Amino acid sequence: MIVNEKLDALRKLMNEKNIQAYIVMTDDFHSSEYVGSYFKVREYLSGFTGSAGTLVVLKNEAALWTDGRYFIQAEEQLKGGSIDLMKSGQPDVPDIIEYLYNKLNDGDTIGFDGRTVSNAFASKLIEALRDKSITLSYQVDLADELWTDRPPLSREPVWELDVKYTGLSRKEKLKSIREKMAETGADILLLTALDEIAWILNLRGNDIACTPVFLAYMIIEKSSATLCVHKEILNDEIIHQLENDGISLADYNDFYSLISEADNDKIVQLDGSTANYCVIKSIPESTKIIDSQSPVVMMKAIKTPAEMNNIRAAHIKDGVAVTRFIYWLKHNTGTENITELSAAEKLEQFRAENDSYLGPSFEPIIAYGAHGAIVHYEPTEETNVKIEPKGLCLTDTGGHYLEGTTDITRTIALGRLTDEEKTAFTLVLKGHLNLAAAKFKYGICGENLDYLARYPLWSHGLDYNHSTGHGVGCLLSVHEGPQRIHWNVNSNQNHYVLEEGMIISNEPGYYLENHFGIRHENLVLVRKGKKNSYGQFMYLENLTMVPFDRDAIDPSLLNSAELGWLNEYHKKVFDTISPYLNGDELEWLKKTTEKIV
Amino acid sequence: MIVNEKLDALRKLMNEKNIQAYIVMTDDFHSSEYVGSYFKVREYLSGFTGSAGTLVVLKNEAALWTDGRYFIQAEEQLKGGSIDLMKSGQPDVPDIIEYLYNKLNDGDTIGFDGRTVSNAFASKLIEALRDKSITLSYQVDLADELWTDRPPLSREPVWELDVKYTGLSRKEKLKSIREKMAETGADILLLTALDEIAWILNLRGNDIACTPVFLAYMIIEKSSATLCVHKEILNDEIIHQLENDGISLADYNDFYSLISEADNDKIVQLDGSTANYCVIKSIPESTKIIDSQSPVVMMKAIKTPAEMNNIRAAHIKDGVAVTRFIYWLKHNTGTENITELSAAEKLEQFRAENDSYLGPSFEPIIAYGAHGAIVHYEPTEETNVKIEPKGLCLTDTGGHYLEGTTDITRTIALGRLTDEEKTAFTLVLKGHLNLAAAKFKYGICGENLDYLARYPLWSHGLDYNHSTGHGVGCLLSVHEGPQRIHWNVNSNQNHYVLEEGMIISNEPGYYLENHFGIRHENLVLVRKGKKNSYGQFMYLENLTMVPFDRDAIDPSLLNSAELGWLNEYHKKVFDTISPYLNGDELEWLKKTTEKIV
Repeated sequence: MIVNEKLDALRKLMNEKNIQAYIVMTDDFHSSEYVGSYFKVREYLSGFTGSAGTLVVLKNEAALWTDGRYFIQAEEQLKGGSIDLMKSGQPDVPDIIEYLYNKLNDGDTIGFDGRTVSNAFASKLIEALRDKSITLSYQVDLADELWTDRPPLSREPVWELDVKYTGLSRKEKLKSIREKMAETGADILLLTALDEIAWILNLRGNDIACTPVFLAYMIIEKSSATLCVHKEILNDEIIHQLENDGISLADYNDFYSLISEADNDKIVQLDGSTANYCVIKSIPESTKIIDSQSPVVMMKAIKTPAEMNNIRAAHIKDGVAVTRFIYWLKHNTGTENITELSAAEKLEQFRAENDSYLGPSFEPIIAYGAHGAIVHYEPTEETNVKIEPKGLCLTDTGGHYLEGTTDITRTIALGRLTDEEKTAFTLVLKGHLNLAAAKFKYGICGENLDYLARYPLWSHGLDYNHSTGHGVGCLLSVHEGPQRIHWNVNSNQNHYVLEEGMIISNEPGYYLENHFGIRHENLVLVRKGKKNSYGQFMYLENLTMVPFDRDAIDPSLLNSAELGWLNEYHKKVFDTISPYLNGDELEWLKKTTEKIV
Repeated sequence: MIVNEKLDALRKLMNEKNIQAYIVMTDDFHSSEYVGSYFKVREYLSGFTGSAGTLVVLKNEAALWTDGRYFIQAEEQLKGGSIDLMKSGQPDVPDIIEYLYNKLNDGDTIGFDGRTVSNAFASKLIEALRDKSITLSYQVDLADELWTDRPPLSREPVWELDVKYTGLSRKEKLKSIREKMAETGADILLLTALDEIAWILNLRGNDIACTPVFLAYMIIEKSSATLCVHKEILNDEIIHQLENDGISLADYNDFYSLISEADNDKIVQLDGSTANYCVIKSIPESTKIIDSQSPVVMMKAIKTPAEMNNIRAAHIKDGVAVTRFIYWLKHNTGTENITELSAAEKLEQFRAENDSYLGPSFEPIIAYGAHGAIVHYEPTEETNVKIEPKGLCLTDTGGHYLEGTTDITRTIALGRLTDEEKTAFTLVLKGHLNLAAAKFKYGICGENLDYLARYPLWSHGLDYNHSTGHGVGCLLSVHEGPQRIHWNVNSNQNHYVLEEGMIISNEPGYYLENHFGIRHENLVLVRKGKKNSYGQFMYLENLTMVPFDRDAIDPSLLNSAELGWLNEYHKKVFDTISPYLNGDELEWLKKTTEKIV
C-alpha cells in the first residue's frame, strides 16, 4: 500500500470507531530512546523514517510534526503524499495541541494508543481541549488491524550479567530499592523503564536496537516483586534464580490488569517521566500516587566499584579497536575504496575481535566532510559517500562490552586541511581539555562546568547547539540520566550534583554547514580527590583511551596548561594501549602520541 | 539599666499583656540590609552589637541566636548576663521555632512587632506551633514603652537625583511599572523596599547608614500613586513635583490603614521577600494577593545608558582616591603611626576631595594581618591595630557618588611577604582575572561562571566561603539583587540571566585563619558583544580602575593569557586615571602598572 491508501484504510477504521482524530507517536510502551520495529507505526503510515515525529490523521487531512534535524528528510519522504509537514518550533507552525483544538468540533473523539503516549502530553491535551468536550479514546491501536505484516513484539532471549560485572546482586539492589520506598512511604513501586528493570535484575536482552534490554514491566512491593515479561524469553535457570530472589512472573501484557487491582489503601509510586498514560489510567482512581523520580535512576547512575573497574577495561579494549581503525583509515583512504558505511563496518570488525564485545551501543556515525556538519547524521545506502584523502571525517561510535558501554568521537584528518579546519579542530580540543582538567568541590553540577568546554569557541563568537555531556549506562543505554553538562540552569528544574562513580561524556563540537564538523568525545568518570577543611574535592578521570589526531592540531592555539594536559593524556593513552598493538600500528601510536612542544 | 534590669522590665510588660514569649528581630520595617538606630532594639536589650541576631525572652530565660561570624563577639558581649547564646547551625542547637515549641505551653501567646518580622518566618511559626494553639500577638512593640531614650525614627531631608544621573524620569519609571502590573493583572502594587521607592522616585535620603534612602512605603494603582512618608522630610519643590507626576502623599504611619481599606475586588501585588508580616495581615482577607518579585527589582538591576556612563565616571574618581590611598599606605607604613581606623579615615579624605562624593557605601573594612582572615571584620576602637611594614592589609571599601556607587577590595603588600602569602595572592588573582575575561553567550547566569574564579584555588585544594559576586545599586544599596555569582544552583530556585547593564562584583578571596586574608574585588558591567547566527555574545567591562599590588604577585603562577589580561588591565588603569595624578603618585602609578613579563 502507498501512504495515501494506508491513510484511507486508517480513516475507515476511525470512522467505524467514531474517532475524528488519530495520533501516532514514535514511542514504545517504555519511553525508550530507540524503539523496536513493532513500534514503528508512524514510519509505516507516513513513510517518514526519522527518529522523532508525530503523525495526526483527521478525516480530510493529516500532518506530521518533526524537529529541525529532520526538516529536509521529512520533506523528501512526505513528497507526493497528502501529509502536511509541520516544522516544530518554526514561526507560525501550530503545535499538535493547537492544531487539534482548531480542527476538531465539540464532542469529537481523539484516539491513540495510550501506552505510547506520555502522561504529560495526555494531561496537556485534556487541559487544552476542556472547553470542547473532547473524548480521549486512549486504548485503540488502529495500526494493529491495518498493518497486516506488522513485525511481532520482539522476544529475544534474556541472559544473566554476572555479579562480577555489576558489583551488586539483584537481592542487594532490591533491598536498596525497598529502603528508598520506605523513605517515600510507597507500598508499591511501578517500574516501566526497560534499563531500570534490566539493571535491578542483572539481566540483559535484545529487544531494542543498540540497547541490551528486554520488554518488561516490574511491580515491587515491600515483600514481593513481580516481573511482567514474555515468559518464553527466560530460561529455566533464570526463572529459578528469580524465584529464589523472591520475584514472581506474570505475562508482559498482564501488567495493566495487575496494577488495576492494587489495593485502595496502598500507596503507589511511579516515575511520570517514563510511565505511559495507560499506566496512570490503570491505577484505581482512589489510589494515592507518588509521582517522583524512580529510585533506580540515581542508583544506576552511580557506578559500583566493580563497574568502575570493568568500564576501564572496556575502554582499553575499545581504545585499541578505535586506534587501529584510525590508523587504518588514515593509511588507506585514497588507495582503497572506502565509504562511510564500509568504514563503519571496518571499525565494527576491530571491535568484534574482542571476546566480550556484544555490538554497537548506537548506530555508528561516520560522517565525512560536509556530512560531519549534520549533527545527527547516520550514513545510509542513500547518503553514503566515498571518503577522500582530504578534509575531516567525524566518527562517533560506541560499543557494548560485558565490562560496560563506550561512546567515543574522534575527528580524523585525511590529507590536507584548511587553516579554518585546523583552527576549529584546536578550539574544540581546547574546550575538551579544559573540561577534562576540571578540579572542583563536591556539590558542583554539570551546569557549573559547561563554560569550560565552550569558552574557546565563545571567545571566537562560535558555539555548538547540543549538550556537552550526557550520562552513560553500564551495558545499558548509551544515553542515561540524570546528570548532564549544559549551561542552561533554567531549562531543567532539577540540577544533579556530580557524584563519584558517575560516567559522563565530554563532547564539545563545532559544525560549519556544508563544510565540515568536529567533535571530540571522551567518557570521564567522576572521582573523589582530596578532602580537607574546605570540603571534598573532585576530579574527572578519563576513561576513553584513543589519541586525538595531531595532524589537525594547531599547537600555537594551545596555552601551556592545555599543551601539558594533551601531552599527559597522550602519554597515558600510549602507556595503556601500546601493550595491545604491534608493528606499524604500534610505531604509529608512538609517533602520534609523542609530546607536542 | 544593665541587661538583666531591661529584661526584667520587659518581662513585667509581657506579664501585663499576657505574653509568654517575646521575639526581637534585627530588621527594620523594610527588610533593609542596614537599619537605623531606632530599630536597634535587640542591641539595646541584649548588649550584643552584631549585625545579625534574634533575641527571644521568656518568663524565666532568654536566648540569642546569631551566626558563625559573631560567635566570639556575642559570647563576649553576653558574658555575665542571663541570655543564653544560641550558635545557629551548630549541632544540637535548636532553631528559634524548635526552642519556642519546646518551651511554650498550650494556649500561650508569642509577641513581636510584626513590622520587623518577615511573612515567611511568621508563617513557619504558625505552622510549627499549630498543635499548641499558640496565639501570635504581632502588633506589640514593647521596647517602645521600655526604651525611654530610644532614638526617634530618622527623618533626614530628601533630595532629588537629577535625571541626568538616572536616565529615566519618575514618570517614565511609573509608566513601566504600570505596564508590568498590567502583565501580572495587579490593580494595586505595594512597595516596601526603600531602595525600590528611592529608585522609582529619583529621590534620595539619609535614613539608613551607608544607604541614601528614606523611610517610606508606596502604593501604586493604575492611575494613582501614594507615597507614605514623614512629610517634613520633603521640601515644597519635591512635593510639587510629586503632585505633578500624579503622586499624592500620606503619612508614613498611615500605610497600614490605607492598605486595609483596599477594595475587595482589587488584586494586590506585593513582594513577600521584602514585605513584612503586618503588611500581609493588613490586607483584607478576601483580597486576592499576588506574591511575586517586585517589577522594580529587574528594572533597577539593569542600569540605564545614563547610569552606565555615570558609573564609569564614579569609578574614575574612586580609582584616583583609592590609588592615592594605596600609594600613601605603602609609603608611610612604618614611618607614620597608622592604624586600621586612621587608614580608613585617610581613604575617606581622599574620596571626599571629589565634589560629587556623598559618603561611604558601607562601613570600611581595613583589616591588617590576621584581621584580614575574618571575612566580616570591621575595625572598631576595641579591635583597632597598628599597621606594620610587613604582611598584607585587606581593604574593602566603597563610596556613594552622585554618579553611582563603588565597592572595591585591594589587598596591599606592606614590606616583606611570605611565599605562602604571595602564592595565595596570585591564585586569587588568577581567579579574578579569569572571571573578568569571561566571554559568553546571552542566557548565561552567574552560576555558570563561578568556577572561573574558584578554579585556581580549588585545584590547590583551597576555597573561600562566600559568593564571588553581588549586584550593586546606583546610589542605592551596595548589595543589590537579583543577579549573583555563586556556583550553587540548588540553593536558590531562581537563576538570573546576566543582562546588559547589570553591575556585579568579581571578588574571589582566600582566608587563612590567624594569619592573613586576601580578596581582589572589581565591579564589572555586563555588556553585549557581537551578535551572529550563534547568538548574542556578552562580556564583562571592568569598572574599577585601581592597580593590583605587583609586590604581592608571583608571575610564575600566571599563564600567558592571565599575564596578558593583567597587563591589559593595568594599562587601562594607567591610561584612565593617570591624568588625575601628579608627582610621586603619578610616577608610582607608572611603575606599578608597568607590563609584567
